[in-house]
Amino acid sequence: MRAEIVSIGTEITSGQALDTNSRWLAQELASLGIATAFHTTISDELADHVSAFKIALDRASLVITTGGLGPTQDDLTREAIGLVANVPLEEDAESWAAIVALFARRSRPMPERNRVQALLPRGATALANRVGTAPGVWMRTGGSTLVSLPGVPSEMKVMFHEQVIPRLREAGLARGATYAHKINLFGKGESDIEALALDLTARGRVPEVGITAHEATISFRITATGASEAEARLAAQPTIELIHARFGDLVIGEGDRDVPEALAMGLERANLSIATAESCTGGLISALLTTVPGVSRFFLGGVISYSNEAKSKFLSVPRGLIETHGAVSPEVAAAMAAGARERFAADLAISSTGVAGPGGGSAEKPVGLVYLGLATRAGVQTRKLELGPEQPREVIQKRAAKHALNWARLAVGK
Amino acid sequence: MRAEIVSIGTEITSGQALDTNSRWLAQELASLGIATAFHTTISDELADHVSAFKIALDRASLVITTGGLGPTQDDLTREAIGLVANVPLEEDAESWAAIVALFARRSRPMPERNRVQALLPRGATALANRVGTAPGVWMRTGGSTLVSLPGVPSEMKVMFHEQVIPRLREAGLARGATYAHKINLFGKGESDIEALALDLTARGRVPEVGITAHEATISFRITATGASEAEARLAAQPTIELIHARFGDLVIGEGDRDVPEALAMGLERANLSIATAESCTGGLISALLTTVPGVSRFFLGGVISYSNEAKSKFLSVPRGLIETHGAVSPEVAAAMAAGARERFAADLAISSTGVAGPGGGSAEKPVGLVYLGLATRAGVQTRKLELGPEQPREVIQKRAAKHALNWARLAVGK
Repeated sequence: MRAEIVSIGTEITSGQALDTNSRWLAQELASLGIATAFHTTISDELADHVSAFKIALDRASLVITTGGLGPTQDDLTREAIGLVANVPLEEDAESWAAIVALFARRSRPMPERNRVQALLPRGATALANRVGTAPGVWMRTGGSTLVSLPGVPSEMKVMFHEQVIPRLREAGLARGATYAHKINLFGKGESDIEALALDLTARGRVPEVGITAHEATISFRITATGASEAEARLAAQPTIELIHARFGDLVIGEGDRDVPEALAMGLERANLSIATAESCTGGLISALLTTVPGVSRFFLGGVISYSNEAKSKFLSVPRGLIETHGAVSPEVAAAMAAGARERFAADLAISSTGVAGPGGGSAEKPVGLVYLGLATRAGVQTRKLELGPEQPREVIQKRAAKHALNWARLAVGK
Repeated sequence: MRAEIVSIGTEITSGQALDTNSRWLAQELASLGIATAFHTTISDELADHVSAFKIALDRASLVITTGGLGPTQDDLTREAIGLVANVPLEEDAESWAAIVALFARRSRPMPERNRVQALLPRGATALANRVGTAPGVWMRTGGSTLVSLPGVPSEMKVMFHEQVIPRLREAGLARGATYAHKINLFGKGESDIEALALDLTARGRVPEVGITAHEATISFRITATGASEAEARLAAQPTIELIHARFGDLVIGEGDRDVPEALAMGLERANLSIATAESCTGGLISALLTTVPGVSRFFLGGVISYSNEAKSKFLSVPRGLIETHGAVSPEVAAAMAAGARERFAADLAISSTGVAGPGGGSAEKPVGLVYLGLATRAGVQTRKLELGPEQPREVIQKRAAKHALNWARLAVGK
């Protein structure tokens, strides 16, 4: 049982876009006990679709394609499946109704060309698209299973989870099981954490442990196998516990949980409210926190005090303090946090002030220098971060925002 | 003349690592006038190497592989080339001397197994590796050219630039040049824009025009070829001008420029200042705007008024207005924008209030309903967006924020 993933689009073959779908799908398939042997990427040429689909169906028993299901002339997947399976395309009434309903819900007129998205190769099953217009395709052909998904990652992921996994299980393609568990850490660099985990990440260890980094969050990925999911899960358990014990409060959570979710859970549990006062992060601390559903129960609001006037007016930062110490200083970070806590009547408040760059740095206050403030009932503290100077502006802003949220998480957890 | 890129490694097919080499190589080849038609990724299985190399050499006149040149048992590229070209492997004296010299320079003992890295298929040319141990391979076989490079990106890039490009030119494979130009649009859906561009995106058009969407920004990619880069650029020009003329103020910019950069440029040009008042976007309007360097020249700040108290206290929104119309209403959006404009003493202010979901929706005010406010010297206007209800919270927040910034961009441009 080997799988092949085919991603479609000239923007990928030409190098203008990076294919992230194939990696995601390979990980998902691995967790279902299915090994991916090939990834193929093809451009928007019909002949290449047909030959690549044939090669894939010949060497893999499961072929998953992404892309080419849109309404435009570049979108050739449906047509190619018809040619490969030697069947005509026919309009699928249910898919058509779903497309019409989607446009109605969005109160937008439906372009006539979207009608082609309801076409389905004869003998295929349409996979409903709950978040976009393009239905997917599930088809048995030449002894293999061909599954075509949209290229838009958000649509592709929902369709894979809701429509494909149950069918793979039903068809007996997802056999045995792999259990993958991700534990996320924040607060130390990847090499520091790796140095503490050499025994875990050693080649050949069972269960296998991988380490990855994304926006300063370090993740351990534990992959265990077993006859059933329960068995695989059981095999992973001792390693999961070992990581928790070894890394303590560097652990922010499991799965997709990153720093904002961890802070939100902590606030909820402790029944505390929070407010923000942002300068160099420009709203990002708040924006990250408000990606968490239900956050309005404890997030009262924030002030982005980009100008010195705003710092005084909205956060009661004394003008003299800014003149004496400069806007980027522990004193101003402390005053911003205290001001936000008081003005929003919040239990705690976090603040940021720094040099995000690329301009504005000096020998004394280089790009990447950020001061965070944290105001709680117990008083105000500040922290200094040095995130530059070689990092781009967006990286400095993101790291500063995550460090601020993480500091609040640790304060709430105590 | 079509190229194929083959990346090698089970860590990529399994999804544990992301392949970034293929994209980089495709971009480099495009700039040399060579179109990449296929990317293939294979795992560390010898039979898959052989069959994939054969398929690639059959359908492409230039095949570039990355990975599998290391000293371990997983490294099978040299062996596979020998099998495909039906030639033995022989030790290359120069490569062997280079490996010995590298270990001596690093003052490290040389493991005996590194000797396999000096093996070269008979008839091939070794490509010197200035920054690592594995030499690359350049070989003509079956009418095509096969180039094998290391998988480590830093080694692969140096070798491509120093060893491969001169040989491609010498062999007459790198002919002419390609010029790629991206124009970004915002404010209409992909299918609406495509419907207005059928003549441009038609298959076979010269120069070629592709269309892609990323976070509601729609991009046209114009790819023109010519004998030189100047000629290719000239060939793209009429199409670039046509797109600008046809899509008018839907065009937000070229290359990487998205809505925030376009608004920033407009504010700079018009010498206007801006402030924000955010509810459902939770700081994201400001965070997007402040990713632009130098934004402090015209961005004064913002208030994230997540609670009703914050709306009244920081933005002077009358309590009665919220009680009568609800926080998600055009009346409150207008009052928030007007309040922010006045309190920050800004030339213009934008506001958002809506239901980001997944909870909190009702029949009257469903998930995805967002009201934007725009306050200028001329007065206050509001706009209603329907972005749901099936979209995830983050998508609704991102689209609402980009629509708000885009509305301000259009207002500034007038």
